[in-house]
Amino acid sequence: MRNKTTTRTKNDLRIIPLGGLGEVGRNMTLLEYKKSILIIDVGLRFPEEDMPGIDYIIPNIEYLKKRKEDVLGIVFSHGHYDHIGAFPYILSYIFKKNLKVFASPLTRGIILKRQEEFKGYPKPKITEVKNGSKINLGQFKIEFFRQNHNIPDNLGLFIETPVGNIVYTSDFKFDPHPINDLPTDFKKLKSFGERKVLLMMSDSTGAEEEGHSLSEKEILKNLEEVFRVAKGRVIAATFASLINRIQQIISISEKNKRKVCVEGYSMKTNIEIAKQLGYVNAKKTTFINSKQIKNYPDSQVTILCTGAQGEARAALMRIASKEHPFIKIQKNDTVIFSSSVIPGNERSVQVVKDEILRQGAKVFHYKMMDIHAGGHGKKEELEKMIRMIRPKFFFPVHGQYSMLISHAELAKEIGIPEKNIVLLENGQIVSVTPKEIAIEKERAASNYVMVDGLGVGDVGEIVLRDRHILATDGMFVIITIVDRQTGKVIGSPDIISRGFVYLRESKKLLKDTRKRIISIINKATGSGGAVNWSYVKDELRNKIGQFLFKATKRRPMVLSVIIEV
Amino acid sequence: MRNKTTTRTKNDLRIIPLGGLGEVGRNMTLLEYKKSILIIDVGLRFPEEDMPGIDYIIPNIEYLKKRKEDVLGIVFSHGHYDHIGAFPYILSYIFKKNLKVFASPLTRGIILKRQEEFKGYPKPKITEVKNGSKINLGQFKIEFFRQNHNIPDNLGLFIETPVGNIVYTSDFKFDPHPINDLPTDFKKLKSFGERKVLLMMSDSTGAEEEGHSLSEKEILKNLEEVFRVAKGRVIAATFASLINRIQQIISISEKNKRKVCVEGYSMKTNIEIAKQLGYVNAKKTTFINSKQIKNYPDSQVTILCTGAQGEARAALMRIASKEHPFIKIQKNDTVIFSSSVIPGNERSVQVVKDEILRQGAKVFHYKMMDIHAGGHGKKEELEKMIRMIRPKFFFPVHGQYSMLISHAELAKEIGIPEKNIVLLENGQIVSVTPKEIAIEKERAASNYVMVDGLGVGDVGEIVLRDRHILATDGMFVIITIVDRQTGKVIGSPDIISRGFVYLRESKKLLKDTRKRIISIINKATGSGGAVNWSYVKDELRNKIGQFLFKATKRRPMVLSVIIEV
Repeated sequence: MRNKTTTRTKNDLRIIPLGGLGEVGRNMTLLEYKKSILIIDVGLRFPEEDMPGIDYIIPNIEYLKKRKEDVLGIVFSHGHYDHIGAFPYILSYIFKKNLKVFASPLTRGIILKRQEEFKGYPKPKITEVKNGSKINLGQFKIEFFRQNHNIPDNLGLFIETPVGNIVYTSDFKFDPHPINDLPTDFKKLKSFGERKVLLMMSDSTGAEEEGHSLSEKEILKNLEEVFRVAKGRVIAATFASLINRIQQIISISEKNKRKVCVEGYSMKTNIEIAKQLGYVNAKKTTFINSKQIKNYPDSQVTILCTGAQGEARAALMRIASKEHPFIKIQKNDTVIFSSSVIPGNERSVQVVKDEILRQGAKVFHYKMMDIHAGGHGKKEELEKMIRMIRPKFFFPVHGQYSMLISHAELAKEIGIPEKNIVLLENGQIVSVTPKEIAIEKERAASNYVMVDGLGVGDVGEIVLRDRHILATDGMFVIITIVDRQTGKVIGSPDIISRGFVYLRESKKLLKDTRKRIISIINKATGSGGAVNWSYVKDELRNKIGQFLFKATKRRPMVLSVIIEV
Repeated sequence: MRNKTTTRTKNDLRIIPLGGLGEVGRNMTLLEYKKSILIIDVGLRFPEEDMPGIDYIIPNIEYLKKRKEDVLGIVFSHGHYDHIGAFPYILSYIFKKNLKVFASPLTRGIILKRQEEFKGYPKPKITEVKNGSKINLGQFKIEFFRQNHNIPDNLGLFIETPVGNIVYTSDFKFDPHPINDLPTDFKKLKSFGERKVLLMMSDSTGAEEEGHSLSEKEILKNLEEVFRVAKGRVIAATFASLINRIQQIISISEKNKRKVCVEGYSMKTNIEIAKQLGYVNAKKTTFINSKQIKNYPDSQVTILCTGAQGEARAALMRIASKEHPFIKIQKNDTVIFSSSVIPGNERSVQVVKDEILRQGAKVFHYKMMDIHAGGHGKKEELEKMIRMIRPKFFFPVHGQYSMLISHAELAKEIGIPEKNIVLLENGQIVSVTPKEIAIEKERAASNYVMVDGLGVGDVGEIVLRDRHILATDGMFVIITIVDRQTGKVIGSPDIISRGFVYLRESKKLLKDTRKRIISIINKATGSGGAVNWSYVKDELRNKIGQFLFKATKRRPMVLSVIIEV
């Protein structure tokens, strides 16, 4: 899997995965032929723990800036935020009057809804496509095909290009009994294989897991059992984007004569869109609001909510921590966590689970029982996909590096020669000709672009580093007034400190620090002549920093202001 | 499991679990009879993500303060930091000349080593005890018995008390083929059961997991296989406290004629102690230092290091990020992560794993292969323990609430009546008589005591809240000079901001903010008469805060200093 590097040739196809944080090409991918660029997906990533205050990470599109006119159009695979969420931001750079955008009806609905939050941003027309749709964009002929995932209306792409056919699988799993959806069309996939595929980009998320993903039918059976034995209310928490799981819970509730109260803004919104477009089916009388719950016996109520990841402000946490105005945990409640736990969230999930258990409810989570299946195929499915598509070149995408490696190993085991497999990072460029695949020496910019409030890309490493220091040991600001004539400190220095020590209990420390500040400044200015104030400030930062560290073993950020009067 | 509450009676035995963060009684437990108190373990917890800058959490011993004279002594179960790590801190409150402390040889060695870091703290004499040792402390007769865990010299306690016999299991698992240790003495455990046990406190860590924990023999077999196929160096990362795993890796290395280079301060220290006391067996010639690695062929080198959790400053991370002066990842390296992942660390582990894979090494982790077993028994073992000890009352300890519940359910299923099981939080008090068990109305203080640098308990909620705000959106300090006579601002206000926006690119924002500051102050002071400066500061905080939020959707901490000259 070590590919030789190359430089661009005139007739190659370039594939450029963008979008950050270790997952290759999940959020955005460019296909470039000669001057023309096709964009697949424009999604975002949620930040890591070491990025305090950051809302999300969007793809770095430096490579696209100034190339607006070369963009043929954008095709979206499905409606999850990691595939659509950065669209409004990117538009500011590539919007043009006749920008062509294609998405399936549900994906389109979710994109349009999200755009409502971005007032004043351009809103290009989005053309609906579905399973079997064919479009031409420049030299690319794109055929959309349905793929099972955990949101309906997910589309893979079969792309005819001048160098050969490309398959982009989208996120996928094979499910013989999906919810609200047809099973995978294996015949279609095989027919792509028969048309000869030069290169496949395939979802690697499940590549480290043995076996086959669970069918939604199994999940349904288990969820039904949980509902069957539940004596009181059922509180089912899942992701707002798991439209299929949401449908299951609504259907089971209807079957069990339970009303459904939906809690959580994003879940309400998604259900609204999916209902309008016919992707969630429910009787009108099924839904109630939280104030109406008390009108029904517990055994006739389901609460469907966000917060299965223990998110601090989501509905389930508000219910568990008694902050919800109308819903509190009751002893005969059954609480279902129907979602996997995103790495990093295990602690928060444990906290909310314990809190619910303490209040006497029963808890079911996916480790106890199969009440959740991911949206991504495991090794068996990935293998089957490769065998059906039989690509000449294989490019594992959508996953952490360890998943890509595992996927590449799998491809090698079933006969794709090592030299035909590329493993790369976002920003690296794949060059494909009918004969050869290689990684180019040139790279597209791929460092993180962070969104914080209204700022896009204005929080960089320095701001983040400062936030870390402030978070760890707080700040310590020294304000001193100095007599312009004598250079001596007037009065006692002001100190503002937060996040460092509890000030009221540290009077002696502050007194000693003030003494030192005065002595440092008076010493520096004592010799007469011009004072080098930036030297004095450095002295304060270093010496007071050391003094505070010695006294507390903490290193607050020390800043100083000296005012001459 | 709802126990009636009660008030203290004269002749009951009280059990008080202390030590924080959701796990009941893991770190410290008090047994109180009449006025006398026996302390079991004095450990610490590592902080959660939402406690930036905190080093660790120690048990709240408010209940013990002023009762120094009532303390009979301290017994330690084993040498892990969650059972011994808070000892130096607690000593400041309960140290007395004849304080009796008991620990097994290895536990004692680790405690003594740790005390070297606490210069000037009291150092009580620690008496060695081992399997079969019996001691009397006041009305308590304690018999120590060995238990398998993942550190040698782990002791459970059989305690005869005036109300009946108590069994404290310590952390444990049953291992028919342990490393450097004897298998569990089931005969001894059964003999305790025959002597009638009033109450058992049993480790609940594995209570949510089905089956039996893996034997270390299995792990050994798999580790041997990894070593057998490794062509180059083996880099084995594990916890410094997993003395048994460390021994395995040393033994396999010796068998494979590999030298061992130990990296990571805590691992070096632990191996040193364990070697001195005979708990780690290795030839003198086995160990080499990192500079000597280059003198041996790759196939004759093992690097045994800390950092299996992706800890930022541990040896493995320094190696992976090319910061280690002598060790870099090579393409033919085999890297073993031989530890489970502590919830919350999944992300960091993924990052370091990906980094190593990118550099071309092979990676083995516990999800791919059984190269790690935890130290805690699973359901089968917990059930067997209950069946052997046959306690009248059951008190699941050492675990998150969901684990305690699972353990309690298990006890109920195998015949312990619900009314004889107590489920509680740290600080709650169990009252036991030969006839009855109940939870008292009285509680011992149990809020977290945080250690940050030299400060113990001086970082409270306010400091932590400030750190959160600073971490999320930074700080914004306004310094203004005002003419004492006219009340008007002199010159332009100084602004110090960190962690908010990149200042150089925000000149317009700063200019607009300064204008507003001047206008707010001049307006407030304009009317003449005495100025209410705290009102002016509130105005600045609110109005400038709102202005910055509107401009950026961020909420930095706004602080102001007004200086009258």
